[in-house]
Amino acid sequence: MLQGKVLVAQGGGPTAVINQSLAGVVLEGRKFQPCEQIYGARHGVHGIVDEDFIDLTQETSDHLERIAETPCAALGSTRDKPDLAYCQEIFKVLKAHEIGTFFYLGGNDSSDTLRILSEEAQKEGYGLTCVHVPKTIDNDLMINDHTPGYPSAARFVASAFAGINLDNEALEGVYVGVVMGRHAGFLTAAAALCRTFPDDGPHLIYVPERDFDMDQFLGDVKAVYDRLGRCVIAVSEGIHDASGEAMMTKLADTVERDAHGNVQLSGTGALADLLTGAIRDNLGIKRVRGDTFGYLQRSFLGCVSDVDQREAREVGEKAVQYANWRGGSGTVTIHRVGNYATDYQFRPLTDVAGKTKVMDLSMISKSGNDVTQEFLDYGTPLLGSGMLTPARPRANPVAKILGA
Amino acid sequence: MLQGKVLVAQGGGPTAVINQSLAGVVLEGRKFQPCEQIYGARHGVHGIVDEDFIDLTQETSDHLERIAETPCAALGSTRDKPDLAYCQEIFKVLKAHEIGTFFYLGGNDSSDTLRILSEEAQKEGYGLTCVHVPKTIDNDLMINDHTPGYPSAARFVASAFAGINLDNEALEGVYVGVVMGRHAGFLTAAAALCRTFPDDGPHLIYVPERDFDMDQFLGDVKAVYDRLGRCVIAVSEGIHDASGEAMMTKLADTVERDAHGNVQLSGTGALADLLTGAIRDNLGIKRVRGDTFGYLQRSFLGCVSDVDQREAREVGEKAVQYANWRGGSGTVTIHRVGNYATDYQFRPLTDVAGKTKVMDLSMISKSGNDVTQEFLDYGTPLLGSGMLTPARPRANPVAKILGA
Repeated sequence: MLQGKVLVAQGGGPTAVINQSLAGVVLEGRKFQPCEQIYGARHGVHGIVDEDFIDLTQETSDHLERIAETPCAALGSTRDKPDLAYCQEIFKVLKAHEIGTFFYLGGNDSSDTLRILSEEAQKEGYGLTCVHVPKTIDNDLMINDHTPGYPSAARFVASAFAGINLDNEALEGVYVGVVMGRHAGFLTAAAALCRTFPDDGPHLIYVPERDFDMDQFLGDVKAVYDRLGRCVIAVSEGIHDASGEAMMTKLADTVERDAHGNVQLSGTGALADLLTGAIRDNLGIKRVRGDTFGYLQRSFLGCVSDVDQREAREVGEKAVQYANWRGGSGTVTIHRVGNYATDYQFRPLTDVAGKTKVMDLSMISKSGNDVTQEFLDYGTPLLGSGMLTPARPRANPVAKILGA
Repeated sequence: MLQGKVLVAQGGGPTAVINQSLAGVVLEGRKFQPCEQIYGARHGVHGIVDEDFIDLTQETSDHLERIAETPCAALGSTRDKPDLAYCQEIFKVLKAHEIGTFFYLGGNDSSDTLRILSEEAQKEGYGLTCVHVPKTIDNDLMINDHTPGYPSAARFVASAFAGINLDNEALEGVYVGVVMGRHAGFLTAAAALCRTFPDDGPHLIYVPERDFDMDQFLGDVKAVYDRLGRCVIAVSEGIHDASGEAMMTKLADTVERDAHGNVQLSGTGALADLLTGAIRDNLGIKRVRGDTFGYLQRSFLGCVSDVDQREAREVGEKAVQYANWRGGSGTVTIHRVGNYATDYQFRPLTDVAGKTKVMDLSMISKSGNDVTQEFLDYGTPLLGSGMLTPARPRANPVAKILGA
């Protein structure tokens, strides 16, 4: 049962729908009498240690609905990954404010924080329920069919590559688009979801699940370019060579690392510039362009999957229902039913905490430079409604008069 | 009157709505009996010289409507800028195919091609009507209040910065977004159109209409960062120092130029990386990210202004009406009536051909790092309907128990 005060916070990278989960927790939580108050912590665990709380029981329902439709973490987020000492600080604050249930909206790092925290509470005999509400555009949480945030980011990437393909068709040349994804290629793979015609790009897709080889890459590009006179390529920022070293790390003079020890991959155009340079220098193709999708893909206003919105709301709502009627700490997981519906389960935090799921190799073509039909079947229903299907003029050639 | 065969072609960079203009020309053109046939040239003037035509009188109306909704140039485009000899080649083909009216959808370079072509036709006494249908995301055509393609690209840039602002608010740090725009800052200025709260970014906006000074820039960033603990910056790719040299040119070892002699500014992350590096090195701020919006901003599937769609359709339709009932070569121009409607005029090609409009200085703040209310009033109605207004939680602070 929801007891005492409830705290909700958001961690990790923002998504288009994480505020739907926030609204789900708050609106559902306010329905239960034993729940005294619902606090929101500003900037995740960082705000807890600082006792930087706002009282969400004072928010109007209409305003919560408007916040739900706004992308990015409305409470603020953090990249802090608490160790044991940090978790003990958090715990001290939760006790002082008599927090009975803590909902943390985040990815695998956030669920690991909850795991440590719930273990700490148990050791001290404090009745704290820790509930993880899944979100990550990386789609890399174990057990989950997919994670809230991914479908909208996938819709962005698919829409971007559909447009880029048309642009490249109109003006030709070679285009490289670098997509977020350190270990998991799900988001990059989404580039394939809007292909309509047989010659539509992206013609080549490289994900971190397979080793990247520059010679093989250049050969692939040449083959497509020779066949079509153009080539659109989608690449994960996390692609690495056979030794496991990220292509990005090879480039950076000074490598920036975050609190989790991860090398900073986004927010720089270096990888796209490396790849376009290699194509220009080695294949002698003149018009070679590269873009790094960067932060646009996780926060763009107005690019959202309605499937994702609905599910993000539901995992927030389910988190409260599980905490109230089932009890104990855990994580809400999403499961696919048929084509296409979802169901939810409540699982132990250790099922997802600190673990990373990557693409099943059956979703990647044997050649390592494309996705399979299995991935297309997996990803297509996630994009949601209202996707435009590009049209092109039909072939009605006019006979030449002057030419051969 | 529309006589003989009609030819339509698309030139320059693709936009989200150039196919609306194509549909406008074809659907309206097919209504007039004297118009024998409507050809489309593949890849602009390049396709004319190659006699690469398709017969658009064979296209179904429904399919033309679907093409209209598809971004990018459905007939294909070109970067070729014909000189006199090239124009004579074009003219030869137009004569052979008995083309009476040529509609060219493009920017100032395309209108200049038409100017040369119509002069050539006059010299040879061939009755060729050349009609320019405006389009360019740069919004840099003279006389026009704005140009089709700009409103949708502006919607993309505004939506991107609205999301980036929320992302930056959630995780803080400094963000630099590089927007297309060689000489005109209109598209970069659109970054300001979704600001809602007083502390919303972009906090700084730099356009090519003003000289860029690195020291001033760093001082501006420091001031915002000291005040807000974060900073979002929008920069035109064409920013240049007081000598007129593009910041981009300072960077590139080998500079790529197109057929118009322009330095290639897009398709590389170099400028964003230069600016983020300068901030990191000089201001000692740790979390500094940069993205180059690149080709996404002109082709993204599903980001379109309905105002832009309507107007792009209308300039295509008007072009046919002017050619049929008024006669002679010219360009269709857009004029603003009240707040907000538009009217169209038919003007001599020389009014726009080869000329570039830039932002009026009254649209740029005196400090040179922001836009004025005048620009906001100008740009806001162009974005179209359905723009989301971001919401944020209201301040309901909870009293600290442990902390100071």
